[in-house]
Amino acid sequence: MTNPVTAPDPSLRAAAHARSDAQAKPLGALGRLETLGAWLAACQGVNPPAPLTDVRVVVFAGDHGVAARGVSAYPTAVTLAMVHGILDGHAGISALARSVGATVSLYDLGVDGLTGVPDEVTRFHVHPARPISDEDALTADELQAALAAGDQIAAEAIADGAQLLIAGDLGIGNTTPSAALVAATLGLRGGDVAGSGTGVDAAGLARKADAINAALDRVGDRAADPLQRLAALGSADIAAATGFMMGAARRGIPVVVDGLIASAEALMAEELAPGASAWMVAGHASTEPGCALAQRRLHLAPILDLEMRLGEGTGAVLAVPILEASGAALRDIAALADLS
Amino acid sequence: MTNPVTAPDPSLRAAAHARSDAQAKPLGALGRLETLGAWLAACQGVNPPAPLTDVRVVVFAGDHGVAARGVSAYPTAVTLAMVHGILDGHAGISALARSVGATVSLYDLGVDGLTGVPDEVTRFHVHPARPISDEDALTADELQAALAAGDQIAAEAIADGAQLLIAGDLGIGNTTPSAALVAATLGLRGGDVAGSGTGVDAAGLARKADAINAALDRVGDRAADPLQRLAALGSADIAAATGFMMGAARRGIPVVVDGLIASAEALMAEELAPGASAWMVAGHASTEPGCALAQRRLHLAPILDLEMRLGEGTGAVLAVPILEASGAALRDIAALADLS
Repeated sequence: MTNPVTAPDPSLRAAAHARSDAQAKPLGALGRLETLGAWLAACQGVNPPAPLTDVRVVVFAGDHGVAARGVSAYPTAVTLAMVHGILDGHAGISALARSVGATVSLYDLGVDGLTGVPDEVTRFHVHPARPISDEDALTADELQAALAAGDQIAAEAIADGAQLLIAGDLGIGNTTPSAALVAATLGLRGGDVAGSGTGVDAAGLARKADAINAALDRVGDRAADPLQRLAALGSADIAAATGFMMGAARRGIPVVVDGLIASAEALMAEELAPGASAWMVAGHASTEPGCALAQRRLHLAPILDLEMRLGEGTGAVLAVPILEASGAALRDIAALADLS
Repeated sequence: MTNPVTAPDPSLRAAAHARSDAQAKPLGALGRLETLGAWLAACQGVNPPAPLTDVRVVVFAGDHGVAARGVSAYPTAVTLAMVHGILDGHAGISALARSVGATVSLYDLGVDGLTGVPDEVTRFHVHPARPISDEDALTADELQAALAAGDQIAAEAIADGAQLLIAGDLGIGNTTPSAALVAATLGLRGGDVAGSGTGVDAAGLARKADAINAALDRVGDRAADPLQRLAALGSADIAAATGFMMGAARRGIPVVVDGLIASAEALMAEELAPGASAWMVAGHASTEPGCALAQRRLHLAPILDLEMRLGEGTGAVLAVPILEASGAALRDIAALADLS
């Protein structure tokens, strides 16, 4: 069923480290920047790595039936308003992506009531995810369609020149299925993974943990299979982003992983395509407990920790200048031999 | 003796937080980015803050007599080679500053044997710092001249349009006086503050702690006075950078603090000009133990932790895109009221 992904080129990783070690600086003095630069070189298949001039955030938006369980601080209508905010370029991810030179696009994978947007946005439109505490979010066919949509979005972006991809998320209630996927993958319970999301109160947090536990109990052993887990506990937007990450990894394009939702998607991508996570770095540590759990399982150490919890890809884009600097260090620092 | 510095405008800090709280995102969801943006607005005296289009790194270079005590992994001749590396644009700080859009200049405050460079570079030239384990690094007059040089460099950069300043460091042996200043300020000993610097071995680390202890014992109670402490345990390059940071704060221009050397300078700036550190953020956590000690005393939480220990201002410049993004978030995210 699963189909392993070829790793980034280890010989280029080694060559990048050798280049760094010969530069006019103490051995290892750039710390994590050296590791990131070597990873980038291995992903690109070129040492030193090329400048990152085409970085794209793709936001996967969808509504979640489980929101009716009172797991969020916001009503579901906010999803629709935020879709327009992103399409108009006024959302958090719009501002931060622009600030670091990345572009943003958005696909509707289950937004309720979206109209008056370009056809491209609704090209993969489906109905909102069914409430995971009561029934499977997606049928098996719906899951395959969502995975394929994400793969196609990745393929088209890469064919168009994307060098680095980021999956952003948007949708009221989406931390609940994400946390449920992390719990099911790691053998945990709702209380281990539920966080306050957009800012739910204590009662809402308890409802969220309960909803996750209800979903886990409902699905039972079926969750052992990653496809059934994703269909039962996920959503079309989460599945599409999972397919997007797998598609990037299979085509040799690196991915910066955002917070909880993206980390849950990365976890599912790694289960469905073992080795995919070698093409990923974690952009930041979100304040959601499930984020750190997923990243630790994937051995992805977050580049930034700015106590962010906005989603949309915002934490991941802030790591882009650090990645770009890691490549610049490899390209532009003189060899010690050339200096003296 | 000391002359307090006026704080960044608290009303603008509050206005920036109010603006952020009204934006189309959950309350506080951008975490530290919101605090940084509000600090930037308060420093600039404008909300939202203006884009950072003029960020300057000034590297203060000097040799240190204490290097003869075997406290470094490198011979002092490396200082000279690295000065040329920076002036030619091929050093670590050259690559990273360029990557984030900052400029780099360098001043010789005690480099041994520097010739064939523009007059501007040697405009404040002095002899290398005397070995602090045996004698005071500077006389009282030499200290005043170095502080004044740094102040003048800051004044000229600001008059020329600098919006954000970074003091970089360069000089074999410079972590020893920096660590000694941190120890003397915090009442610690050599073993508490000595780190491996550019990569000294265990025997070198022991010599370094011994050299710091010898310096602390030699200076004794005179270290209670910050000017005597800086003259006795510091150097002209460290004093000039201290004056540079004080000069920036007094003129209302924010500073990003780099690793150990810059954090020791920030500590001295705060002692000589109480309130100066309110104009500073810590760019990163270096691996040197004295860095965290100094930053903690100043209540400066590092923005990045990438296990770097190169110096030259490299950790500070990597925080610049994060600061710029904090301003972009305040400028460009729509108010919730405008979105719905």
